[in-house]
Amino acid sequence: MANIYTSLREKAFEANMEIPRRGLAIYTWGNVSAFDAEKGVFAIKPSGVPYDELTVDSMVIVDLDGKVVDGKMRPSSDTKTHGVLYREFSGIKGITHTHSPYAVAWAQARRPLPVFGTTHADHGAETVPCTDFMSAEAVKRDYELETGKLIVAAFKNEQKNPLHMKMVLVAGHGPFTWGESPADSVYQAAVLEEICKMALLTLVLEPSASPLPEHITRKHWERKHGANAYYGQ
Amino acid sequence: MANIYTSLREKAFEANMEIPRRGLAIYTWGNVSAFDAEKGVFAIKPSGVPYDELTVDSMVIVDLDGKVVDGKMRPSSDTKTHGVLYREFSGIKGITHTHSPYAVAWAQARRPLPVFGTTHADHGAETVPCTDFMSAEAVKRDYELETGKLIVAAFKNEQKNPLHMKMVLVAGHGPFTWGESPADSVYQAAVLEEICKMALLTLVLEPSASPLPEHITRKHWERKHGANAYYGQ
Amino acid sequence: MANIYTSLREKAFEANMEIPRRGLAIYTWGNVSAFDAEKGVFAIKPSGVPYDELTVDSMVIVDLDGKVVDGKMRPSSDTKTHGVLYREFSGIKGITHTHSPYAVAWAQARRPLPVFGTTHADHGAETVPCTDFMSAEAVKRDYELETGKLIVAAFKNEQKNPLHMKMVLVAGHGPFTWGESPADSVYQAAVLEEICKMALLTLVLEPSASPLPEHITRKHWERKHGANAYYGQ
Amino acid sequence: MANIYTSLREKAFEANMEIPRRGLAIYTWGNVSAFDAEKGVFAIKPSGVPYDELTVDSMVIVDLDGKVVDGKMRPSSDTKTHGVLYREFSGIKGITHTHSPYAVAWAQARRPLPVFGTTHADHGAETVPCTDFMSAEAVKRDYELETGKLIVAAFKNEQKNPLHMKMVLVAGHGPFTWGESPADSVYQAAVLEEICKMALLTLVLEPSASPLPEHITRKHWERKHGANAYYGQ
Repeated sequence: MANIYTSLREKAFEANMEIPRRGLAIYTWGNVSAFDAEKGVFAIKPSGVPYDELTVDSMVIVDLDGKVVDGKMRPSSDTKTHGVLYREFSGIKGITHTHSPYAVAWAQARRPLPVFGTTHADHGAETVPCTDFMSAEAVKRDYELETGKLIVAAFKNEQKNPLHMKMVLVAGHGPFTWGESPADSVYQAAVLEEICKMALLTLVLEPSASPLPEHITRKHWERKHGANAYYGQ
Repeated sequence: MANIYTSLREKAFEANMEIPRRGLAIYTWGNVSAFDAEKGVFAIKPSGVPYDELTVDSMVIVDLDGKVVDGKMRPSSDTKTHGVLYREFSGIKGITHTHSPYAVAWAQARRPLPVFGTTHADHGAETVPCTDFMSAEAVKRDYELETGKLIVAAFKNEQKNPLHMKMVLVAGHGPFTWGESPADSVYQAAVLEEICKMALLTLVLEPSASPLPEHITRKHWERKHGANAYYGQ
Repeated sequence: MANIYTSLREKAFEANMEIPRRGLAIYTWGNVSAFDAEKGVFAIKPSGVPYDELTVDSMVIVDLDGKVVDGKMRPSSDTKTHGVLYREFSGIKGITHTHSPYAVAWAQARRPLPVFGTTHADHGAETVPCTDFMSAEAVKRDYELETGKLIVAAFKNEQKNPLHMKMVLVAGHGPFTWGESPADSVYQAAVLEEICKMALLTLVLEPSASPLPEHITRKHWERKHGANAYYGQ
Repeated sequence: MANIYTSLREKAFEANMEIPRRGLAIYTWGNVSAFDAEKGVFAIKPSGVPYDELTVDSMVIVDLDGKVVDGKMRPSSDTKTHGVLYREFSGIKGITHTHSPYAVAWAQARRPLPVFGTTHADHGAETVPCTDFMSAEAVKRDYELETGKLIVAAFKNEQKNPLHMKMVLVAGHGPFTWGESPADSVYQAAVLEEICKMALLTLVLEPSASPLPEHITRKHWERKHGANAYYGQ
């Protein structure tokens, strides 16, 4: 049943299937969405469906308020969080949420992730922020919408650019990542899990490990993302 | 050799095969049973048989006292533990026991598992209890039956509802989980292993990590299991 | 080229191939031997050959002094260690040596492995011993022979029965295990790695974790290995 | 398009493909090069290309200053580091760089890796050195060239022989390894990851673990690499 959303659905489907392939979540956990800025809609994983039962057609098309525009299934329960991020983080086209264990551990420990090495610096020249716990009032108002607001606040408070730092840890919950495409957002989720693991192991060896000096962090970021980047083809 | 127990055997067989697929035990360790409340019997893994040699027919049908009703093999040595749980925890239809390493570590450390995050809260809005060690007298009386009693006591002492918290850690031994079907009980076993891993990693990062605030725990439980649940299809 | 040793070679080959299958060593590390007590010879992995190049014919037949009786390749450099164990530990028919990481960690930390839980007790009702470091004099005399003597000494000192405790940690080196068949010896190696992992994770959660009470340890051992064992078929 | 570099490209390609096979890096991370001392050139992975898109032809031929001699793609951004090592470490024919997590953790903790056991001693009878952080001035001059110089300095300072110790940890970055062939250099990378894991687990069990006595370290090195080596065929 191809329609005007088929291409968007395909991108969302492909990116969702990377979650089990990369070992970023088990069963039905996690979700990826794909944004079409012109149409003002995004395609997102249906709620509670195991990855091996997903199909392109099962992706749900919703608007930025999370209302279903096209599709037969109920969208991910985290849909409104995605909507807030697409509205506030201009330029992003995909969002991924997982429950990968090392990233969850940092989120549960409520520790922002320092730049301990070049693996991190290659993907962001700054600490990965961790949100506050949500207040009881905000939970009551609209939990998923407020999760998006918490993330946005963590970026605004620290004047972070969401196109330069595409990762966040939601306190007591887990990681959200985003990017210039749905595939990029899953890539960021896999990278975040890997650098969370590396950083935890670093702290096991050296509890007072110092972050990478700023001049090395900056160099690694610039050689991949700066005006004179020379990484890649 | 189909008979009136074939369907029950099939459910038990399928759920048992999830144990090696999910990496929850090696060799012959672990076991799953499937309960038929009307007939008052359950199908359980035969004792000491490797998973790759299991067949539907090899599942043993026993009554709630653990006496063999149908089948040629000796049932799991943990059979009486299952019997006690089916008798005492009304409404459960499947039980899983594994030796998955992170859950065993918590059981060996004799630490109840606090709700450190939403992954846990999605599956139970409370601490996973850990039993006491069994007394020498109880071991002598009937070890496997008394294991069941220890589990029931841990729930009664803390007034826990076994349909809301489907997991327990048996001190010095390992996890038992249960559910509304045999498949649900294995799902709970896989979730328990994952949240035990996440919680251990959390404590490595922050030895005094605080549990998730009650209002967030409650919200996550309710959105999946409450009267107005909106997770899933 | 079948000869009188073919059956022994086949057992050794099959057991050696379990090492990579179970993830107990990489590349050429580790080795298994199969003993024929009547002929007074054993078949052992050739030295330095990767597992995916092993064949039945490549297994080397040696006598208890480690002299080659049949075969074209040089036997494992650990051959004399195996010879000492076959001579001293009456009744064993297979020996496995691996470099599995958790068992190596305990050997490098020079900590005997306490019985923290029933997974351990099911396979041995006592601490897994750890040898001393070998003296410079013994290294000079005959390193591999003396490794066997160190293991034997660790058992004699503590009056352990090698048919009841089939595992040892060689200080600064790694695990050796044995059993009533070559397959049993690899099984013990896989179990040792698993209980070393569980025990390390237990200590992360509770540095002063107490061992399983003796009455539970004894019960688990007896139900699998005692006169009235009821585990298995 | 076979030419005089095809054989060198094939060696580089094969060795690069070992990186994902051995789980030493994800996505495009890491790189291996193959050196032809007579021609004074080496073949190296193209920059930013995922492993499943690599081909023999995509390997880039560069001279020791990192200038492209043959090939259509841009070489790895780490190319100049490889060039310095080939120039300074006489006799090496392959270099591998990965971001394997345990080796990265040691590099981020800036801890040289002591010889805790025979697994390490079999591959080097000494501590694996860790470089200093690079100065801001050196980063500005020529980051990748200076990375090579840092590694060389770590070896010269400690009078290490790069054919006896084929591994280094670059502070805040990760491992570089080398060898007598490209395949040997990847082998060293896999060994380094394994001994970094074993050493970290050792320190979890025993924070003041003592290194292997020199006489055992020496014995293990000599039996594999000494004049009278008897390991292997």
